Amino acid sequence: MTPEALTPERILEATEDVLRRYGPAKATVVDVARALGVSHGSVYRHFRTKAALREAVTSRWLERSVVELAKITNGHEHPAPVKLRSWLTTLFEAKRHKAGDDPELFATYGVLIEENSGVVEEHIRELVEQVREIIEEGVLARQFAPAEPGSAAQAVFDATSRFHDPAYAPQWQKPSIDDEFAAVLDLLLRGLSA
Amino acid sequence: MTPEALTPERILEATEDVLRRYGPAKATVVDVARALGVSHGSVYRHFRTKAALREAVTSRWLERSVVELAKITNGHEHPAPVKLRSWLTTLFEAKRHKAGDDPELFATYGVLIEENSGVVEEHIRELVEQVREIIEEGVLARQFAPAEPGSAAQAVFDATSRFHDPAYAPQWQKPSIDDEFAAVLDLLLRGLSA
Repeated sequence: MTPEALTPERILEATEDVLRRYGPAKATVVDVARALGVSHGSVYRHFRTKAALREAVTSRWLERSVVELAKITNGHEHPAPVKLRSWLTTLFEAKRHKAGDDPELFATYGVLIEENSGVVEEHIRELVEQVREIIEEGVLARQFAPAEPGSAAQAVFDATSRFHDPAYAPQWQKPSIDDEFAAVLDLLLRGLSA
Repeated sequence: MTPEALTPERILEATEDVLRRYGPAKATVVDVARALGVSHGSVYRHFRTKAALREAVTSRWLERSVVELAKITNGHEHPAPVKLRSWLTTLFEAKRHKAGDDPELFATYGVLIEENSGVVEEHIRELVEQVREIIEEGVLARQFAPAEPGSAAQAVFDATSRFHDPAYAPQWQKPSIDDEFAAVLDLLLRGLSA
């Protein structure tokens, strides 16, 4: 690859491949450069340190679900209660797929997430902010009546941890999980309703 | 100690001390017998295997909080919504104290809990059953109106995982946790209310 063709996105794609192949403990910037057919100096021109590269690839992974969720948050087809239910279901499905379809990559990102707790906190802030927007929309439409939309949004996110926190991934394949998720959703939507 | 004075409870107390001192990887039945001044045969007369002893000590540890909670469940002083709030707050406080006051013992039981998942499942069933009793009491008094008390009880327990699941223990000391817990409680109680 010529240095001109080398974009941050290409580097991040290659980094994910390298992480998948060698695992987070062994993967190096030299491996990433080799996979791209460039010098490691070319990689460092885009990401100044190995830590910066690992942080960027973690952030990219987390952001993938945010984009999908933002479409629901910004949609105009459904009332807020339907949107919130769909948003939480989509979040759970996205996490469950990530964990189930490619468990090795999921475990790899589990390690990276431990290293980059600031990135994770920012990611969670963005998600809670989307929930707050949906709740405020519901308040305007007199469908929701929480004490305070911001803390209600945090509460909805916290109360559904079992269905999006990677610590619970081993439970996401058990047969009763969908009923349990539906019961929590019903209770929360009832708790928000006007 | 004479064999006559050797009760299961004395053995379990000594086992907890030994686990605390040597850690779960190194503690043996011989250590427990030595701490009690009896032969290991005397210990095996009460607990037939090392695994049975470890299971019993785990169960005893988990049961300690159940007794306190059962007092709330069976009390007659307060209406169901007050009871449920008090029950969940007591559970959170009990877990937070166990984690904060004696972190080594908490970590030790974390290992034992992994080994004895059947005991933990039974413990959780007992707790959810208590929540169901409180909810049914509230339904009779027309304070609560869930779709179905059993699945609502499970949902309340699941939705408060962040405040009783040991996986979240590192977060229980952060300053915002009490407000977050209060916001989840408010939402759930509103969701249950008639």
